[in-house]
Amino acid sequence: MNKLPNIKTHFPEWYQEVIYQAELVDQAPVRGCMVVRPYGNDIWESIKGVMDKKIKDTGHKNAIFPLLIPQSFLQKEADHIEGFAPEVAVVTHAGGKELAEPLIVRPTSETIVHFMFARWIKSWRDLPLKINQWANVVRWEMRPRAFIRTTEFFWQEGHTAHAARKEAEEEVLLMLSHYKDLAENYLAIPVIIGRKSEGEKFPGAEKTYTFEGFMPDGKALQMGTSHLLSQSFAHAFEMTFQDEQGTVQHPWLTSWGCTTRLVGALVMVHGDDKGLVLPPRIAPIQVVIVPIYKTDEDKKLVLDKAQEIKNQLGEGVRTLIDTDDKKTPGNKFYHWELRGVPVRIEIGPRDLQNNQVTCADRLGIKEAVSLDTIIQYIPQKLDALHHALYDRAKNRLTEQWIQRETLQEILDGSEATLTQTGFCESRPCEVVLKEHKLSIRCLLEEEKKHTTCFNCKAPSTKDAIIARSY
Amino acid sequence: MNKLPNIKTHFPEWYQEVIYQAELVDQAPVRGCMVVRPYGNDIWESIKGVMDKKIKDTGHKNAIFPLLIPQSFLQKEADHIEGFAPEVAVVTHAGGKELAEPLIVRPTSETIVHFMFARWIKSWRDLPLKINQWANVVRWEMRPRAFIRTTEFFWQEGHTAHAARKEAEEEVLLMLSHYKDLAENYLAIPVIIGRKSEGEKFPGAEKTYTFEGFMPDGKALQMGTSHLLSQSFAHAFEMTFQDEQGTVQHPWLTSWGCTTRLVGALVMVHGDDKGLVLPPRIAPIQVVIVPIYKTDEDKKLVLDKAQEIKNQLGEGVRTLIDTDDKKTPGNKFYHWELRGVPVRIEIGPRDLQNNQVTCADRLGIKEAVSLDTIIQYIPQKLDALHHALYDRAKNRLTEQWIQRETLQEILDGSEATLTQTGFCESRPCEVVLKEHKLSIRCLLEEEKKHTTCFNCKAPSTKDAIIARSY
Repeated sequence: MNKLPNIKTHFPEWYQEVIYQAELVDQAPVRGCMVVRPYGNDIWESIKGVMDKKIKDTGHKNAIFPLLIPQSFLQKEADHIEGFAPEVAVVTHAGGKELAEPLIVRPTSETIVHFMFARWIKSWRDLPLKINQWANVVRWEMRPRAFIRTTEFFWQEGHTAHAARKEAEEEVLLMLSHYKDLAENYLAIPVIIGRKSEGEKFPGAEKTYTFEGFMPDGKALQMGTSHLLSQSFAHAFEMTFQDEQGTVQHPWLTSWGCTTRLVGALVMVHGDDKGLVLPPRIAPIQVVIVPIYKTDEDKKLVLDKAQEIKNQLGEGVRTLIDTDDKKTPGNKFYHWELRGVPVRIEIGPRDLQNNQVTCADRLGIKEAVSLDTIIQYIPQKLDALHHALYDRAKNRLTEQWIQRETLQEILDGSEATLTQTGFCESRPCEVVLKEHKLSIRCLLEEEKKHTTCFNCKAPSTKDAIIARSY
Repeated sequence: MNKLPNIKTHFPEWYQEVIYQAELVDQAPVRGCMVVRPYGNDIWESIKGVMDKKIKDTGHKNAIFPLLIPQSFLQKEADHIEGFAPEVAVVTHAGGKELAEPLIVRPTSETIVHFMFARWIKSWRDLPLKINQWANVVRWEMRPRAFIRTTEFFWQEGHTAHAARKEAEEEVLLMLSHYKDLAENYLAIPVIIGRKSEGEKFPGAEKTYTFEGFMPDGKALQMGTSHLLSQSFAHAFEMTFQDEQGTVQHPWLTSWGCTTRLVGALVMVHGDDKGLVLPPRIAPIQVVIVPIYKTDEDKKLVLDKAQEIKNQLGEGVRTLIDTDDKKTPGNKFYHWELRGVPVRIEIGPRDLQNNQVTCADRLGIKEAVSLDTIIQYIPQKLDALHHALYDRAKNRLTEQWIQRETLQEILDGSEATLTQTGFCESRPCEVVLKEHKLSIRCLLEEEKKHTTCFNCKAPSTKDAIIARSY
């Protein structure tokens, strides 16, 4: 293994190298696609487990919709086709023949889901209909970066239909709040939530809400979105229901999703010079026990104690004993630090004589812990580490988050910061940001600190968060 | 809802109708594809849960490989391309341009997995490499049937590499034994396991093992396979390792998979005139409680008791209380019978006065059970139902399974049977079956009851199972 690039001076290179060295991912032989290796997949399965429970606990059901969608479906909603047409992959031949109508590999599933919804929804009794899908999607990607932006990626996409606009709006905000909880209370990533501007919203949405993470380099990462869809989807797919009074109406639709990008987010937000630092509630391995011995007699003593600790920690703590005899303890320390395991327990014969073990957390605190208290110590340590990681990221975000009044101030500011400013919500004032590689990440719904637009000086209608982005 | 077609006289129609009425699946707007509805997906998630644990407990790791594969990859192994070329879907355009090299949507992942294995395997220390993937695959299908044969289907595909042929052979048989366990001890489906003939093995395999289920109509259903791959894959992808002595060798490869077809299998094997009959260990809902009341006072009493029973059964039993006030109890009985829920508990005010509930199992046994023993009764009942379903299917298989000596006997026999006979293992004697819409389902490795080939009368080398198939 090579030394990792300096995280402060070479952040993009550090990211590319750390995800490769920690064996999260490998480059696929198809441009822009990734192979998610077992350790990367374990992290994704861990995130999926948390989100899947949230989705089910809020009354949604998982289903599976087809990968291939007739090209004509995409064309039924005007904004949707305009947004996605440039990036779709198209199947033109199958079964040895040219197809009469080309099929697209789904870039997202609104069209096919709505086609089926129209078949399933007849009456108010069929509503709300609340479906989720875990799936792969394909969007042709010109500037790929593993996890962050890949041609094929993996996600959940929720799709719901409601009898009333108010219900649909509540659904959109409910799922946004669960995303915020996932980010902050599991990934230990503080996020800014808000509404997307007209220029940034989902193609076909009336309103898009987002939760945005901010990376150490100041760039925003859109971590997931929740949309109130335009009624035009219901019209395009002739989706109607009879309400309780017998009147025919169009349902109100939502969709919301988060992706494998979350794996990239936690790598960037928490990692350091030694490699990954995984948030404990998501880490596939929370505790690694490294036995240290020279004689066979010591080996037995130490391994027995390691197994005893693992058993006592039980299923509530994901513990691995590294018994690999081909590696030195030092090699193992390096191996698991690179992979971001939150806590390491070292057990040697001298430790056992002193009725203790050595615990080292991934942030560098190392202490002797009595065997009488280790079982209580570990869950508390994992919890403390979660909060330490969150607080560290939150402090950085607070430092990066600058109030600015004018475009010039924004341009003069450090690249590693994000701006809160006033915005008139007009398109020209949004478009002007593009040439400076900036964009409006979201509009703050609740807070208003600025009275004039950063660009045109007209009265500000919303405070906006402006940053560079991934 | 319409009445189901007669299962005895119209089995194919019954199947199509029951999976639709029970809301397992719906037809997709792309020919040959299916939409798996929530209840069908719940069954599949239940099967996945069992199999995923088996895969992990045997030391395999999940990973994710790309959906899209360069066309040239498929051509690297001669038998593989010959087998799959006629049924692949091809992406020729993406990102608004024609691609320099077309990409195929994976029909299976050996080629891309082996490409990556070649990158990851350098030394005997890297072996065995044991990977699994849960994924969607596409094979263009001319005669689609939901779950059984669909253009897009869902599966797990295991891929492993070993230093020695013996190890690879052990892996192939180990995973076959886990499939048999899944079929018999979870799906309650007795299976015949054996080796595929030359004409039926996987394109690119040296040996294919199969577990075959037999449906009430006598047709075989290949429920999954486990392959020792030809060394040509390792050669094609230049996959080598240094053994402990420093000699460069090619690893030995296996692959094995089972699919959403298993959902179709359990529908066909266990279903009856009233609908699905789900094996209890897989059923997403194992017990449905139907409260019966007329007054509000009774409603409260009955629902409280229902909740108490559900709580006492705990997480070990998947219990649903059907509180839908828009349906009569009779409607609910019908609804859950159609969906194959193994046990129904009816609770009415008179039951409560008698300190009892009424339990009806899906095979028609109905009895009063004391509230003092209901918590012990339910798990025992679920277990007994599993065995009853297995035994019923096993008895049918025993009746269907006929020893025959000649092709004429096979042709004269009832279509609803399968044949065990002698086979010389030559291609001509296998090909002759095709014109009669029969095939060799597997060769029995351990049992030999016949001395001459059913067709050419040469000495038999293996007993073969011959049947029509799905």
